[in-house]
Amino acid sequence: MTTGLENSSRIDLTTEEIFAAHEGGKLSIGLTAPLDDKRDLSIAYTPGVAQVSRAINADPELAQKYTWAARLVAVVSDGTAVLGLGNIGAAASLPVMEGKAALFKRFAGLDSIPLVLETTDVDEIVETLVRLRSSFGAVNLEDVSAPRCFELEAKLIEALDMPVMHDDQHGTAVVALAALTNAAKLSGRELGSLKTVISGAGAAGIAVAEILLAAGVSDVVLLDSRGIIHQDRGDLTEIKAAYAARTNPRGLTGGTAQALDGADVFIGVSSGTIPEETLAKMSADAVIFALSNPDPEIHPEVAHKYAKVVATGRSDFANQINNVLAFPGIFRGALDAGAKRITPAMKVAAAEAIAGIAAQDGLRPDYIIPSPLDERVAPAVTAAVTGAVLSRNGSGG
Amino acid sequence: MTTGLENSSRIDLTTEEIFAAHEGGKLSIGLTAPLDDKRDLSIAYTPGVAQVSRAINADPELAQKYTWAARLVAVVSDGTAVLGLGNIGAAASLPVMEGKAALFKRFAGLDSIPLVLETTDVDEIVETLVRLRSSFGAVNLEDVSAPRCFELEAKLIEALDMPVMHDDQHGTAVVALAALTNAAKLSGRELGSLKTVISGAGAAGIAVAEILLAAGVSDVVLLDSRGIIHQDRGDLTEIKAAYAARTNPRGLTGGTAQALDGADVFIGVSSGTIPEETLAKMSADAVIFALSNPDPEIHPEVAHKYAKVVATGRSDFANQINNVLAFPGIFRGALDAGAKRITPAMKVAAAEAIAGIAAQDGLRPDYIIPSPLDERVAPAVTAAVTGAVLSRNGSGG
Repeated sequence: MTTGLENSSRIDLTTEEIFAAHEGGKLSIGLTAPLDDKRDLSIAYTPGVAQVSRAINADPELAQKYTWAARLVAVVSDGTAVLGLGNIGAAASLPVMEGKAALFKRFAGLDSIPLVLETTDVDEIVETLVRLRSSFGAVNLEDVSAPRCFELEAKLIEALDMPVMHDDQHGTAVVALAALTNAAKLSGRELGSLKTVISGAGAAGIAVAEILLAAGVSDVVLLDSRGIIHQDRGDLTEIKAAYAARTNPRGLTGGTAQALDGADVFIGVSSGTIPEETLAKMSADAVIFALSNPDPEIHPEVAHKYAKVVATGRSDFANQINNVLAFPGIFRGALDAGAKRITPAMKVAAAEAIAGIAAQDGLRPDYIIPSPLDERVAPAVTAAVTGAVLSRNGSGG
Repeated sequence: MTTGLENSSRIDLTTEEIFAAHEGGKLSIGLTAPLDDKRDLSIAYTPGVAQVSRAINADPELAQKYTWAARLVAVVSDGTAVLGLGNIGAAASLPVMEGKAALFKRFAGLDSIPLVLETTDVDEIVETLVRLRSSFGAVNLEDVSAPRCFELEAKLIEALDMPVMHDDQHGTAVVALAALTNAAKLSGRELGSLKTVISGAGAAGIAVAEILLAAGVSDVVLLDSRGIIHQDRGDLTEIKAAYAARTNPRGLTGGTAQALDGADVFIGVSSGTIPEETLAKMSADAVIFALSNPDPEIHPEVAHKYAKVVATGRSDFANQINNVLAFPGIFRGALDAGAKRITPAMKVAAAEAIAGIAAQDGLRPDYIIPSPLDERVAPAVTAAVTGAVLSRNGSGG
């Protein structure tokens, strides 16, 4: 299959420069204080450090103040769903986790360390991170295959007294919600009233459904490879069955064509393609987010024949849905606020903050979401997430 | 008990400055390449990073070249024997592990991350590190209580295909051997012929015995809290029984007085004290290393009445036995050479390199070992350890 994208304006990278940039890895350790004389040594190591250890032993809360762990994100993967490469294992996933850690530092000033696991057993992963829990302050799960990722995230949230988020789910969902908020605004419609179709019920699809429901979108229809997810299907996993009960209020059955008939929004997170003719039945001023990478479900030029607003996951088209807009500020905000969990309210607040940056610049069909490099985004997300934590605490919720 | 050390010239640190220096922890993450534009992002993260992950998946050896893990030391502790503080737990041990990681960076340019464990079960610790093994390239065990530390180190060496070393054992042993080599040289005696007594059969004592045997010292006598370790004792742990068979060639029994009668060398690693009168029976030109911290087994001024050369673990007396002289270069050398294990030969080579630096400067009774801040040491140790690896490989051993 040709996607017609081969001649697009993608950044032309050579294999040589990519590998050269990865030599020795992408991270390094730095010291926050000098170690140049006996005095420095005596403070940072023995005998001075003993006072700090003794203090933490007496009052464990002091670890928050006197170690790096309280603000350290563990970027955790078992290598089972790495980018579009599938289950390539722990070692091969490490360059991606290093890249993720680099983004945490670059955009939110957060330190993070990649921890890649040779086991894919959910309970073993949980057990491993529980044993190490004093070593870090938050967990960013990455590239864990569905449906295991749902169980793993849920169990980690229960087992660890710290923020845990599977970014492939929620990072994507937060940025998609931000983009959809602005797309709705552009066409003068209420977010909550949009008939929305999500193609793909893996990690990202489920999370997009979840955040749309949390944001008040009442008509969400999920599609998996076998068609519309509805309550009469007997072939659903536990998680899909749960969403069958919470989505599809009109009780649709069938496939993509039936789902898109009269729909306002198509969000593709399926790694598949979508036939052009099915888009023709969408409503006027439709919104199409074709987020599969590297090949969108539909080429944006084709999508524009049927939609007012089009977004993709790619940097060489307008409106890139890139979760780097979300995760640095979400974790930074959660850690700054001392939150023990990342709640739906925090995610919705993050989406609103991202949307607000673009809205402030002036929305256009080709500008509903800020650039991934926009320096204003992470601080705004941090502030919004911190605010969401504090308002919840303030209300005693 | 007063040690008479209260008025010595120790560096005067205030609690305030120690805690201030620890705020936020002592480590940070740095990026080895810029992340300033779309091109940078496309190289370090998607889509460029996928090429690197795919390559490692096809050839796992490439992880050595294209991730930070190959040169990353995990500084691992379960918090059971932290400094002189005992079993204070994982979280309270973290400032010490951060300090250790800082020393690795400062002296050997090696990146390292503290991993502190909430379990003290040896098999669970091994299991945890095996699951994470693609995340780092070497393990520095730290502050694990004896005798668990011996079993843990042995099992990790078996389970992990990478350098593993318990620094409280071998770092101390290497530097003690270096100092003893120069002390022997100063008094014109052969190292191998020295009658040597080690007081303390914990992590450090056992390791000092081990390296002295490896270096050719034939008459080594170990003492624990119940006296001389000999083969007729029925109260020995497995590890002590093993050393009862390999040490004490004259079959001594009794306590410190019997052990020191005619001995050339006393090495204290016991956290105890030693009665002055027992030292009087040592041979002429004796060597006393009173390494307990913060209180040496005997005050160096008193020790000098009976010994030509005296060393302690403290920075405010001459001849400080500080394992920072050893571990940075040992790990750097092992990793540079691609060694999978840290062998006795590598440790002896490290000790010779450390001794050589001081010898080159000119030995004196108050200068048998370089300063912990001596910038020449880590590179010399690195080169010696690398040489030991290569000569072993070259000989097919």
